[in-house]
Amino acid sequence: MSRPRLPILTNRADTLKYVDGVVRILDRRRLPEEIVFVDCRSYREVAQAIVDMVIQGAPPLAYAAGYGLALAARQFRTMPAGEYRNALAQAHRELRDTRPTGADIFPLLDRALDLALSAIAEGRDAEAAVVAFVDAQIRAGDRAARLSGRHAAGLLEDGDRILTHCFAGAALNYMLYYALEAGKRIELIATETRPYLQGARLTAAQAREIGVPVTLVTDNMPGYLFYRGMITKYVTAADSITLDGHVSNKIGTFQYAVLAHHFGVPFIVLGYDGPDPDRATAADIPIEERNPEEVFYCRGVRTAAEGIRGYYPAFDITPPQYVSVIATERGLFTPWNLRDYFAAPEPEDA
Amino acid sequence: MSRPRLPILTNRADTLKYVDGVVRILDRRRLPEEIVFVDCRSYREVAQAIVDMVIQGAPPLAYAAGYGLALAARQFRTMPAGEYRNALAQAHRELRDTRPTGADIFPLLDRALDLALSAIAEGRDAEAAVVAFVDAQIRAGDRAARLSGRHAAGLLEDGDRILTHCFAGAALNYMLYYALEAGKRIELIATETRPYLQGARLTAAQAREIGVPVTLVTDNMPGYLFYRGMITKYVTAADSITLDGHVSNKIGTFQYAVLAHHFGVPFIVLGYDGPDPDRATAADIPIEERNPEEVFYCRGVRTAAEGIRGYYPAFDITPPQYVSVIATERGLFTPWNLRDYFAAPEPEDA
Repeated sequence: MSRPRLPILTNRADTLKYVDGVVRILDRRRLPEEIVFVDCRSYREVAQAIVDMVIQGAPPLAYAAGYGLALAARQFRTMPAGEYRNALAQAHRELRDTRPTGADIFPLLDRALDLALSAIAEGRDAEAAVVAFVDAQIRAGDRAARLSGRHAAGLLEDGDRILTHCFAGAALNYMLYYALEAGKRIELIATETRPYLQGARLTAAQAREIGVPVTLVTDNMPGYLFYRGMITKYVTAADSITLDGHVSNKIGTFQYAVLAHHFGVPFIVLGYDGPDPDRATAADIPIEERNPEEVFYCRGVRTAAEGIRGYYPAFDITPPQYVSVIATERGLFTPWNLRDYFAAPEPEDA
Repeated sequence: MSRPRLPILTNRADTLKYVDGVVRILDRRRLPEEIVFVDCRSYREVAQAIVDMVIQGAPPLAYAAGYGLALAARQFRTMPAGEYRNALAQAHRELRDTRPTGADIFPLLDRALDLALSAIAEGRDAEAAVVAFVDAQIRAGDRAARLSGRHAAGLLEDGDRILTHCFAGAALNYMLYYALEAGKRIELIATETRPYLQGARLTAAQAREIGVPVTLVTDNMPGYLFYRGMITKYVTAADSITLDGHVSNKIGTFQYAVLAHHFGVPFIVLGYDGPDPDRATAADIPIEERNPEEVFYCRGVRTAAEGIRGYYPAFDITPPQYVSVIATERGLFTPWNLRDYFAAPEPEDA
């Protein structure tokens, strides 16, 4: 077997850059056919790119938002200090209000704004302060992805047929990579993940590049595959994990978790850097409802009859009783001992 | 409120005709945008139209196959009797082997062949014998649709929000129609039903025409709607019902049935003319696996990465413990007393 490879959506610095007043974002909507970057030259362009799903996934879009604040710090740097602070606070609000469900964007933007304001107060360069902070966040996020993926890989067994939904990000790539490196023969079953088709496009392409055989199904098929015994593990990421073990992730995650539980298949959540300290329980997760028109189309082609309504909740919430393991950079947790994450030792940067 | 209307997919004679050596089939793939008929002038063209899903649904495609055999009887009528019988037997095999899961096609074609052979033996017109038989089957099927829909309507309550999957055919139209006529305010939530989008196209358009508000969701969303308490009934058709209460229907039916059961929402199956006497249990239902390429496309547009596999089981099987009620033309049954169907009185043609 050839050595497994790590594809483009593994290392965040390959997909998101800050260079001299430009936030350059890999356009995930055009993957895997094209590698195209969108250049944002103002914080509002960054906010729009996040809303338009140029970049997706709770950590990546939080990093993009952070760079957006750095752009604002650059855009407004010639203003008097009072106006400058107000303009940054406004940019912070607009970037924060782009997408509500993923938890990473909020603490990251709050901290970035604090650093910018301190820099201004101390006569230092606010843009540089924010960029340095976001760069460090990306490095820490890459470490979380790598280590949580490695911990999850340890749970996989030779012969596993793994159902996954949406694109579980860099940690999924690492999980597959480390499992292959350990000589485990595994297969991935990817749901296409309507309406944006992240499974059909991102997950399928990444897994193939890593060297894992991947089978695509539509979102109505996993139940039958469970019934037939064709799935041995269920793995997704999480956009948010509450302190009491509720997992929010792409719409559909919950229904497959219920089925996994029903059929005795473990549900492994790639938990990256652990639970969100500010979210105690499910009621603290706002579920983003996107434009219902989006469910009437597939890749720009109208798929639905006219004259009807649509409904598009972008995420759902899986209660803890359906979650078997949460694989984080600090090791494996269950939803029931998740608060221990904060007491666990910081990982060595191995 | 304006009086509810019955749309085009209600009365089968509006969608399938036999006229002088032509089987004229409404092309469901082009609904609701266009009303286009496909003319088949040989039994092989009919078989191909069934394989290509010009016509869909277990009863309608069985009627089309029956007319296909009438076409064969016409095509080969100048042959000597022995050859004629062989040619009809060959046509019977090819028509029967188009789609395996729906149960109606098998007894209908067997009976049609018997009638054709008897007609030949007695020197009567085999084409006319088959056409008369299929015409009668369509009338009986329309009655089954109307009465099972009416029985199901009796189970609906004012304020119901009904989840449905795929297109449940004429009985769904009648169910909605009779519920509205009885003054019940109901809403329909339709899954889009990938890869063919019968929910987004057929169900949505038919319900709107009847006058029922319809909300479209993608196939990964019902779980969240159950979780939120937004669904009060779950209703589908069945392509096959075994004597012990297993229900085969469009892929996805099962996973929503598990969720309905989990959340205490009743699952009502539109059972038309009851269980299939030749199918004792789940093992007797062959599940059609269609070309995996079909899951890589949506309305002709490529949706998936290259270099991967696909899997496309077209139907699934729901075990009886998830089925609450089976509404047939002879009244309501549970999966546990379904054999009583055969002892129940034939309905008056009301």
